[in-house]
Amino acid sequence: MPRLEPIKQIKLSKMSVDELIRAFGKASSMGAGRLAEAVDIYEKMIRDRDCKIFFGIAGAMVPAGLRYVIHDVLINNWADVFVCTGATLTHDLIEALGHKHYKGSPDLDDAWLNKLGLDRIYDSLMSNNVYPDLEKHVKRTVKKIPEQEMGISEFLRYYGKYSPKHSILRIAYEKEIPLFCPALQDCGFGIMVHYAIKQFGGPTINVFKDLDDIFDISWEAKKKGSVVVGGGVPKNFIMQSFQFSPKPADYGIQLTMDRPEPGGSSGAPPREAVSWGKFKPKASFVNVVSDATITFPIIIAALKERLL
Amino acid sequence: MPRLEPIKQIKLSKMSVDELIRAFGKASSMGAGRLAEAVDIYEKMIRDRDCKIFFGIAGAMVPAGLRYVIHDVLINNWADVFVCTGATLTHDLIEALGHKHYKGSPDLDDAWLNKLGLDRIYDSLMSNNVYPDLEKHVKRTVKKIPEQEMGISEFLRYYGKYSPKHSILRIAYEKEIPLFCPALQDCGFGIMVHYAIKQFGGPTINVFKDLDDIFDISWEAKKKGSVVVGGGVPKNFIMQSFQFSPKPADYGIQLTMDRPEPGGSSGAPPREAVSWGKFKPKASFVNVVSDATITFPIIIAALKERLL
Amino acid sequence: MPRLEPIKQIKLSKMSVDELIRAFGKASSMGAGRLAEAVDIYEKMIRDRDCKIFFGIAGAMVPAGLRYVIHDVLINNWADVFVCTGATLTHDLIEALGHKHYKGSPDLDDAWLNKLGLDRIYDSLMSNNVYPDLEKHVKRTVKKIPEQEMGISEFLRYYGKYSPKHSILRIAYEKEIPLFCPALQDCGFGIMVHYAIKQFGGPTINVFKDLDDIFDISWEAKKKGSVVVGGGVPKNFIMQSFQFSPKPADYGIQLTMDRPEPGGSSGAPPREAVSWGKFKPKASFVNVVSDATITFPIIIAALKERLL
Amino acid sequence: MPRLEPIKQIKLSKMSVDELIRAFGKASSMGAGRLAEAVDIYEKMIRDRDCKIFFGIAGAMVPAGLRYVIHDVLINNWADVFVCTGATLTHDLIEALGHKHYKGSPDLDDAWLNKLGLDRIYDSLMSNNVYPDLEKHVKRTVKKIPEQEMGISEFLRYYGKYSPKHSILRIAYEKEIPLFCPALQDCGFGIMVHYAIKQFGGPTINVFKDLDDIFDISWEAKKKGSVVVGGGVPKNFIMQSFQFSPKPADYGIQLTMDRPEPGGSSGAPPREAVSWGKFKPKASFVNVVSDATITFPIIIAALKERLL
Repeated sequence: MPRLEPIKQIKLSKMSVDELIRAFGKASSMGAGRLAEAVDIYEKMIRDRDCKIFFGIAGAMVPAGLRYVIHDVLINNWADVFVCTGATLTHDLIEALGHKHYKGSPDLDDAWLNKLGLDRIYDSLMSNNVYPDLEKHVKRTVKKIPEQEMGISEFLRYYGKYSPKHSILRIAYEKEIPLFCPALQDCGFGIMVHYAIKQFGGPTINVFKDLDDIFDISWEAKKKGSVVVGGGVPKNFIMQSFQFSPKPADYGIQLTMDRPEPGGSSGAPPREAVSWGKFKPKASFVNVVSDATITFPIIIAALKERLL
Repeated sequence: MPRLEPIKQIKLSKMSVDELIRAFGKASSMGAGRLAEAVDIYEKMIRDRDCKIFFGIAGAMVPAGLRYVIHDVLINNWADVFVCTGATLTHDLIEALGHKHYKGSPDLDDAWLNKLGLDRIYDSLMSNNVYPDLEKHVKRTVKKIPEQEMGISEFLRYYGKYSPKHSILRIAYEKEIPLFCPALQDCGFGIMVHYAIKQFGGPTINVFKDLDDIFDISWEAKKKGSVVVGGGVPKNFIMQSFQFSPKPADYGIQLTMDRPEPGGSSGAPPREAVSWGKFKPKASFVNVVSDATITFPIIIAALKERLL
Repeated sequence: MPRLEPIKQIKLSKMSVDELIRAFGKASSMGAGRLAEAVDIYEKMIRDRDCKIFFGIAGAMVPAGLRYVIHDVLINNWADVFVCTGATLTHDLIEALGHKHYKGSPDLDDAWLNKLGLDRIYDSLMSNNVYPDLEKHVKRTVKKIPEQEMGISEFLRYYGKYSPKHSILRIAYEKEIPLFCPALQDCGFGIMVHYAIKQFGGPTINVFKDLDDIFDISWEAKKKGSVVVGGGVPKNFIMQSFQFSPKPADYGIQLTMDRPEPGGSSGAPPREAVSWGKFKPKASFVNVVSDATITFPIIIAALKERLL
Repeated sequence: MPRLEPIKQIKLSKMSVDELIRAFGKASSMGAGRLAEAVDIYEKMIRDRDCKIFFGIAGAMVPAGLRYVIHDVLINNWADVFVCTGATLTHDLIEALGHKHYKGSPDLDDAWLNKLGLDRIYDSLMSNNVYPDLEKHVKRTVKKIPEQEMGISEFLRYYGKYSPKHSILRIAYEKEIPLFCPALQDCGFGIMVHYAIKQFGGPTINVFKDLDDIFDISWEAKKKGSVVVGGGVPKNFIMQSFQFSPKPADYGIQLTMDRPEPGGSSGAPPREAVSWGKFKPKASFVNVVSDATITFPIIIAALKERLL
């Protein structure tokens, strides 16, 4: 008979977020237990000076109100590599330029919203009149970037230098955190960059150059770990940098609602990555299957309490 | 153009659970916003003296470590009607009799677990040697219950009188909260009650009697609301008591991971219930689609902070 | 190196449903492969004369248009035990009495539907004027049933004798297939039975009696298997009959959209049941995670092609 | 009272795939009904000579055995624009070069698989020894491509010319179907292209050039529609080409298991796209929430039966 660790039933009181997480951790079962494990693993990654943290994020996190939570990750150096979708950069830049997202509902009449010029993201809304300002900023900024061939990441570093304070691009620039956005052309911001370069000239942005940068970091890291919010291209881009480097990763957190059964990368649980040599068989990893707009800010709140 | 309420981006700091929830509420979008709304609606139900709260729970909440969280609901009178699955009563009674659940993993070898006499509930384990103690308790208790015809709820009230302190059955008995378990025969506890009655005699438990009790409460309530954790029979049993009474309900919270598309009751969003006359068109309701083992304790922690 | 079986890429042409399934089976991966495996396992159960098939169904299958598909299972003796929710019996009886369900949409205005007396089940509608006819039938039928104590299953057998042709109740009666509905009081039909008995007298329906019936079948079966559509109480009621009998089951099919991570019974994959002694470690079982309103009729169509 | 269309209960017999779909269509409710609607809408798009079909695919469709099903779409001109993930091209090319995927199980020991050099994709396996052949092919092919600046799509067209018969790349080349893979660097194939170009020289592949191509098609199309399998970048890349062109689309099919609630693009139902001006308010669109490895081949089988 193996030695079994009993589940300590959670006792609630007036407690801080991290106290709640620690209570979840003692119970350590189902979603609550895995959420606590995620905080512990992330804390370990941060405290492990040899560990490079690859942070990937997809999904409507800025329209969900989590913009500053993403900023927290960058400001506190809780990411050594940051990979995101174009939509994340677009929505963040829009807010940094002074625009807002608004409260909506999935039950609103979409034809009516369309007439009002409001774009719906589930129960959040964005006005189409953000685009002229965004375009203006892009045009002004692209002109400042050298007309040479560069990777997406290098381009975003240049762009970040001229981005408003309190934007992902600017903070990553200032903190010197490599920022990757593999499908940059797949978002409003990217489209505007394209048209600005067509109109005024500008850099030639090469699809492949970033691979050298992220692979170098992955090769040279003594240890490494991944924090994946939502899956998508950011997840796969991190995972392939683990696969095509000699050492698999030591840590991994995944926050997703996607299912594993259809076989897509977003829903694949971390254990599967062991077969690919992306994670060590004895790596510490956990999959929290629950809405990341809830779990991600809880994890960051608990970490702030533990570490700041 | 309608007046739009901007999403206030969440700022995290060392904060209590309810402070986090209030920050979520200002953002008020996606899962985080709906979780905050759920706390607000539950608080309103509790503060509304005219409101009878119908609380339903399904799923492996006790093996997940949430036993005392369920007790909190009863102890604080945050349920006027309590409906649960047989499994909830079984796992709670097992713990109340001094047994434990244990930490496991979905990757364990189930044939090996079976040889060890360990039953797996996703990543939680229970030993088969809980059954003799449970059986003993059931046999001893059933003998004390009058040999008359009664409903399931009445039976559970008698049983609760003799249940261990810190059990759902006992607390509901002491707090005089009507406890319904419509499929009592669909659990280990129910099976043992059946065999005890066969062996020693005991009450005749009538399938239908409970309907009068729950319908009376639903008819007589000036206002009412539902708190549904996980769906299943408890959800439907509450909802039909709303349907077959003249006044639809005023409030509703639902915590689930089930999808609406296949048409089952557990995944059906609260708005659908308006068509059935279960909720008023202007009722305050919200569906939090996220793992309830995370959201349910957060809601109760926030309520304790607000109300105790 | 283990001997590996290559995935044969599916080639489509004008093909029958079973030809498609056989092509899926050669590929035998992801959802398509598991669906093919489900057909194979169900076919084996049917061809295995020693095997008793426990069939459980939950969810809005009749409003989804699958009423005759359920009937097919009974008519062809592809169930030796049939367990369902009350809603299944209610919707089936309503159609058998000549009423219809209607096409709707999840985007309809539920307050407007409520005024029209239309109840919405995701994108299907039912009119409230089915209830008077249902009530009339229940009152008329209950009077014919002996005023004695009986289990739910026995009651449904009596009721089935007087049910309209082409109803689940009548077919199960005629085919002598034991029909269980553990939470009979949790549906419109059950509520009407309750009121009819109150008004005119009738049987006393005992919660527990059915346990003897289903346990006897489970004990005496040389071999057994489960077909579970949608989960819920029907799944658990079948599974506990496997658990509390000496021999675990040999076959199992599950069609569900529910997730395993929150720990509930509906989403639990069949392998977990091995730890409980519900399935043999070497049992043939498969979990098809896909909308059962699609997969269930496909399986039955393929079986009709293979076996009739 | 609106005129209601009754649900015709599905009757199964020995039937072809399309006969089954037509039976589903008469019932026209829940998943089965939506699947039938998807076939009808896709058929309309194909028959509508003014309609340009934008086809996007993500997820492990080739490891699932659906390689030839994807080819069917191209061969029959059921896509005027084809957008996919890098993984789709990688797995397809690997098979076209003579390698296979193998049957596996999610319960296999991933550390053991890693030692054997087998990569797991849920319940499908791929051997690491596909990579040398893939590398050889890439090196040989890249040398044949002009050393000039080009977009990803143009590069893939060149590559397709030298790809093996029965590969997506070759068929798209021969059928002159524009093929987009916005995150080409996010897959094994892309990585090898990168290293080949570094080693031998080759084209400079520009991130943005494709935008002109896909936007031109979207602008010039009299009518247009989308077929989205699995979501991800392919979905968004199609949808933004609809958004940034004057006319919204007329048709849309989506096959996904992703949820809408967390706000990500993959799970967003088609109606939401109306607010963005991606779909006309009166467009014909449907969301089939079910495993696409089942629904996608069924749709193509039904279309072959109807149209070939």
